[in-house]
Amino acid sequence: MPNPLRIWCSQAFAPEIRSALIARLNPHSIVWPDDARATNLVSVGRDTRLVDSIDIAFGQPVPEDVLASTSLKWVQLSSAGYTRYDRDDLRVLSRSRGLAICNASGVYSEPCAQHALAMILADLRQLPASVRSQAGDRGWPYAAIRSASRLLGGQVVLLVGYGAIASRLAELLRPFGLDVRGFRRRLSGRETVPCFSIDRLDAHLPEADLIVNILPASESTKNFFDTARLTRCKPGGRIYNIGRGDTIDQAALEAALRNGTLAGAYLDVTTPEPLPPEHPLWLAPHCNITPHTAGGFIGESQAQVEHFLANLDRFVSGAALADRIM
Amino acid sequence: MPNPLRIWCSQAFAPEIRSALIARLNPHSIVWPDDARATNLVSVGRDTRLVDSIDIAFGQPVPEDVLASTSLKWVQLSSAGYTRYDRDDLRVLSRSRGLAICNASGVYSEPCAQHALAMILADLRQLPASVRSQAGDRGWPYAAIRSASRLLGGQVVLLVGYGAIASRLAELLRPFGLDVRGFRRRLSGRETVPCFSIDRLDAHLPEADLIVNILPASESTKNFFDTARLTRCKPGGRIYNIGRGDTIDQAALEAALRNGTLAGAYLDVTTPEPLPPEHPLWLAPHCNITPHTAGGFIGESQAQVEHFLANLDRFVSGAALADRIM
Repeated sequence: MPNPLRIWCSQAFAPEIRSALIARLNPHSIVWPDDARATNLVSVGRDTRLVDSIDIAFGQPVPEDVLASTSLKWVQLSSAGYTRYDRDDLRVLSRSRGLAICNASGVYSEPCAQHALAMILADLRQLPASVRSQAGDRGWPYAAIRSASRLLGGQVVLLVGYGAIASRLAELLRPFGLDVRGFRRRLSGRETVPCFSIDRLDAHLPEADLIVNILPASESTKNFFDTARLTRCKPGGRIYNIGRGDTIDQAALEAALRNGTLAGAYLDVTTPEPLPPEHPLWLAPHCNITPHTAGGFIGESQAQVEHFLANLDRFVSGAALADRIM
Repeated sequence: MPNPLRIWCSQAFAPEIRSALIARLNPHSIVWPDDARATNLVSVGRDTRLVDSIDIAFGQPVPEDVLASTSLKWVQLSSAGYTRYDRDDLRVLSRSRGLAICNASGVYSEPCAQHALAMILADLRQLPASVRSQAGDRGWPYAAIRSASRLLGGQVVLLVGYGAIASRLAELLRPFGLDVRGFRRRLSGRETVPCFSIDRLDAHLPEADLIVNILPASESTKNFFDTARLTRCKPGGRIYNIGRGDTIDQAALEAALRNGTLAGAYLDVTTPEPLPPEHPLWLAPHCNITPHTAGGFIGESQAQVEHFLANLDRFVSGAALADRIM
């Protein structure tokens, strides 16, 4: 029997998900922030601080609480994005006392990759134009839509930010016969498509038919796709964003769509979110937007729980954790 | 040098496509219906009859003209569908004097398969809801759309009408990890997914999460998906139609969507086409419609020409023709 571990969880799971999780934790115990008064956790305003009784945090702990805890050994984030935790003091803490921080890319790489392919195919097959026609005059614009429809095949596709999502997307794209190229900060040599340092991206932009932006938010990626980079893009190129909104200069994107440098954009993320109804990007030509829904799916909570429990098994047995980011 | 052949072509190609085709036909000659007075073709109303000077017809000849010609050796249709030509007198003629009839499934299997996957993914990822929101109040319905979004994976998918389109769609679906089953009239034993006689379909409908209808129009497929069959479907199942509109009883489909037997439909074909703006199917719940655009793509005319020329090479050399249907 492993040593009982104390787990803190900030996820607002439905009662049946919570019960199912508890039933599978034995001999470990779990507390939620709203249970804090029954434990030795200290409630600070709306947050519950992780004090020195907690071994594992599951969800979205406040970074300062992670830094303050001396007992915490592992943080399992419930998201694929980890902008809040991408900071030097946490990296130092992780290195100095072995604190592990994992994200949930195992949960979100599949929906995000599928959502990206859905956006690409819907864009090329002109599905938004048909939806608008159906919601409008129902005029059966057969000739106009057919003559603007495209095939996915033969294009140069740049996956910018080559991690778990891009790797899965590359698998989904394989049957189409494309020239897929990945770009990332640190090359592992294990990438399944030709991958380049992100410093080399600018040389590839003039050849890119489709750009899939999966960059995380950080100081170095803010407005990464700015006027200079968008101007380098191949005329008629198309851009898809399932990373973070602030990695694209939206005014520059709108200009590129209006002046025809880019022929289309399909964005799941914007700045800010929600994008206000009066924001000009909503009305930019050939610009479609989904409201940050790429990661969502029926069964998301169960998948988060399964991902956590599988990693808990690894943690207990001392195996390498999945999706470890620090 | 092969014997010069006389080709009749009803395709209204743009001048540059027509010139490119002519330039590659030497030593063969080609006439278009509007050139008929310059040839020994007989113009009958808007049609130009194929008389006994023509070896090959490329496009959409009137079936009666095909029957009347004694010189015609090969008909290359410009479409994948061949409802007009699916008749016993043409089959008899084909057998009795070796007239070959080919369709253009080599041109249309790729766009149709991609369009089907686009419809499936757009449906599961709730893209139409986002398009409607963007065209409407731009209210950023994050929670509603995420909680209705689905993954493609693990589902039972029935490809009803297993030919070139279904075979290509099965390739595109492979990375998703699905239980794909094909159904067709005549099994070849060379199908790349488990395939069954279409007589066995009813036994599979109660297990079907996704049904892709690729049936051609014929007496035997008219209203194939009728109330009885739609009632057998798995509750929450979804249907996609890229075959022909009259293979689904649209009143039965509308009822199945309204009473919740089916959770969604995405149709590229309807009865009639255009579907009149006041038709109730436009407003059926979870029913999305594209205006028969599945086969369209930029480069369609060039692809038709390349397909014809490749088959012409086979015809001249006596090799088996591609996409031969009779």
